[in-house]
Amino acid sequence: MATQAVFYHAGCPVCTDAQEQFVNALDPNQYDVEVIDLGREKSRLSQAEGAGVKSVPALVIEGKPFHINFGASLDALK
Amino acid sequence: MATQAVFYHAGCPVCTDAQEQFVNALDPNQYDVEVIDLGREKSRLSQAEGAGVKSVPALVIEGKPFHINFGASLDALK
Repeated sequence: MATQAVFYHAGCPVCTDAQEQFVNALDPNQYDVEVIDLGREKSRLSQAEGAGVKSVPALVIEGKPFHINFGASLDALK
Repeated sequence: MATQAVFYHAGCPVCTDAQEQFVNALDPNQYDVEVIDLGREKSRLSQAEGAGVKSVPALVIEGKPFHINFGASLDALK
């Protein structure tokens, strides 16, 4: 049974690179990845913050935030 | 045919978290992941730097460096 993972981004070039490489690199047998653009879906900001996300792009796996390189801080998206 | 990916770490707690979650999350049908402890294998530092790695933990996929959270800078390992 696949585990939920969430990839947060903001449409930035750093985000796009990470999404193309990382999200596609995850084992589809292990993870269902939801992709959320926080630039458009501002209602999801509090969920991202609650998971400990400080910047995008970031991937939350099993409740743990992993910041991948640096595109933009969450504060810049509010 | 699997692509080579390299995970660089230095044995730090942030590195261990990333390794457990990330390296195991990658699709084994797509990637062969080599794990290198730069704290012990200092001879690999130049290879990491050449790939653009600035800090560990980091994963290099298809020549692109992805810094995952922040454990230690490469300079601190020299």
